Amino acid sequence: MTHDDDIQVSVLGLGEMGGALAAALVAAGHRVTVWNRSPGRADRLVAQGARAAATAGDAVRAGGPVIVCLLDHASVREVLDPLAAELAGRTLVNVTTTTPAQARETAAWAAGAGAAYLDGGIMAVPRMIGRPGASVLYSGSADVFHEHRRLFDLWGTSTYFGEDAGMASLYDLALLAGMYVMFAGFAHGAAMVAPAGVTAGEFAAMAAPWLTAMTGAFAGFAEVIDGGDYTVPGQQSLEFSDLTYLVAASADQGVSTEVVAMVQRLVRRQVDAGHGKEGFARIIESIRRPG
Amino acid sequence: MTHDDDIQVSVLGLGEMGGALAAALVAAGHRVTVWNRSPGRADRLVAQGARAAATAGDAVRAGGPVIVCLLDHASVREVLDPLAAELAGRTLVNVTTTTPAQARETAAWAAGAGAAYLDGGIMAVPRMIGRPGASVLYSGSADVFHEHRRLFDLWGTSTYFGEDAGMASLYDLALLAGMYVMFAGFAHGAAMVAPAGVTAGEFAAMAAPWLTAMTGAFAGFAEVIDGGDYTVPGQQSLEFSDLTYLVAASADQGVSTEVVAMVQRLVRRQVDAGHGKEGFARIIESIRRPG
Ligand SMILES: NC(=O)c1ccc[n+]([C@@H]2O[C@H](COP(=O)([O-])OP(=O)(O)OC[C@H]3O[C@@H](n4cnc5c(N)ncnc54)[C@H](OP(=O)(O)O)[C@@H]3O)[C@@H](O)[C@H]2O)c1
Ligand SMILES: NC(=O)c1ccc[n+]([C@@H]2O[C@H](COP(=O)([O-])OP(=O)(O)OC[C@H]3O[C@@H](n4cnc5c(N)ncnc54)[C@H](OP(=O)(O)O)[C@@H]3O)[C@@H](O)[C@H]2O)c1
Repeated sequence: MTHDDDIQVSVLGLGEMGGALAAALVAAGHRVTVWNRSPGRADRLVAQGARAAATAGDAVRAGGPVIVCLLDHASVREVLDPLAAELAGRTLVNVTTTTPAQARETAAWAAGAGAAYLDGGIMAVPRMIGRPGASVLYSGSADVFHEHRRLFDLWGTSTYFGEDAGMASLYDLALLAGMYVMFAGFAHGAAMVAPAGVTAGEFAAMAAPWLTAMTGAFAGFAEVIDGGDYTVPGQQSLEFSDLTYLVAASADQGVSTEVVAMVQRLVRRQVDAGHGKEGFARIIESIRRPG
Repeated sequence: MTHDDDIQVSVLGLGEMGGALAAALVAAGHRVTVWNRSPGRADRLVAQGARAAATAGDAVRAGGPVIVCLLDHASVREVLDPLAAELAGRTLVNVTTTTPAQARETAAWAAGAGAAYLDGGIMAVPRMIGRPGASVLYSGSADVFHEHRRLFDLWGTSTYFGEDAGMASLYDLALLAGMYVMFAGFAHGAAMVAPAGVTAGEFAAMAAPWLTAMTGAFAGFAEVIDGGDYTVPGQQSLEFSDLTYLVAASADQGVSTEVVAMVQRLVRRQVDAGHGKEGFARIIESIRRPG
């Protein structure tokens, strides 16, 4: 199923995620050259039609855009630094998870090497790649995003956040923060009900639709935050949301109170500063300005 | 729109929530007697067809089930204690938010007074009462739940959790804990992206579908937790989920790290105990046994 518009593309890094990205490109009929530090990880992809390169330099020299999916920023620089001369005039797409500052650093390095640079943040686990629900965030070169969007859309929904190479990582990490914090909240709830004989599965069956419904509150919080006036009527007040019950009930159940106490601290810093009658959305002010 | 099967029911407490519950009963054509400590709050309900009682005792003597929706446990006991004799042989439905221990205490008190007792936890804000998405959790007397379910279904989806009167509150608080913690995660993410010029509204538009999709992970975590084996393959490891990037990026953005540091502490307690290769679901063990 090769077509005239299939292109040569290289993938550096065949871990769980890099392997999934490469497999989606191969399945779509592109000419994919793959490289991984440890041998053996390319075998399955080669069986599907990819070509294995012996070194990262060989993979780059195969031509076309170079997709980088390594462990972290340090491994990206370790692999790319010796290849600066090879990358002049080429296109680099780095979907390794890094901080915004690291993404900007790699973008500056790429600019110095004369390469066009697009950074990506993957909002999916490997088995979701190419399936509904997968989302990849991009920022950096608009030209690269538009020229190769057809490749990116093979992985999931592609969203572009502008020329600042750090922006995709920033969104990525902000969304991951939301996810991990939500997971901690789920674990806390499951720990609370467990001593009463409720299984985590029973709790999950209630918690998933409940929290889904409650994501509906974000837009209202955002309106208040962006409006800059936490006194607008109709909001649940900080005073009302003191979490005293939640902390007490957690202690009664014999579980750690630290997860809910974290939220209570955010609330109380605002109440102590005299904002108790204002809306709950004001907790963002406790995060913006560390107390 | 009065029917043969409309009943007499009394509501004690006409705050935001009690008023909404009473209004739904009135709208369905029931004979509703209402009482509130401060006068004036009954006026709108009386205009809609409710009868106002001058005292809580008068409201109880009007007959039928007595719905109690006051501020907290202390106010419930303050109002009910003097009415113990009146409540013999009667039915009490207490939907005031309390801890499980307080619900059990009120249930024991009601048993002593010879009243049938059902406890409730309302998973909705007042404007959602009687509309899609509202959910009320019940536990305590199964007879009361089944006899008056038709009333309860006027408020939202009714779920019954068994004879232990504390169970509805426990579920209620565990789900509220999940919600507040998720809200803190949303606020953290919005605070992270704000310095880059991203509005809370733009972030909410990404965060709501993302976190909705990620509630899909709860069932998998629950399976591992209930199975009791955190080493089953295919899980994201605790080591992989160290949150170092998230904490660093939060600090880079100049925001407080305490929200994500809370999750990192849960992860690290398990890693430090030698479980780094095991699945992320194991963070529940950090909550079950305070470190
Ligand atoms: N897995 C997920 O659910 C997921 C989700 C979103 C984003 N991501 C991101 O995607 C990236 C890859 O994750 P993954 O799941 O594929 O991780 P992984 O399975 O652990 O693979 C890591 C890859 O990086 C390579 N590597 C590590 N250090 C290296 C070095 N110094 N030099 C050269 N290669 C090096 C490894 O090569 P060897 O085989 O030689 O060790 C392997 O190819 C990460 O940034 C991750 O945060 C992953
Ligand atoms: N609002 C929500 O979003 C929501 C959601 C879920 C659950 N709930 C729960 O529903 C219950 C009621 O909440 P609400 O929103 O209706 O609160 P509210 O608007 O503040 O009303 C509180 C009610 O309690 C009465 N009260 C307080 N102390 C009293 C006392 N010592 N003696 C007699 N009456 C007393 C108040 O009477 P006065 O008018 O005389 O002050 C008022 O009727 C609470 O347990 C709350 O946690 C509320």
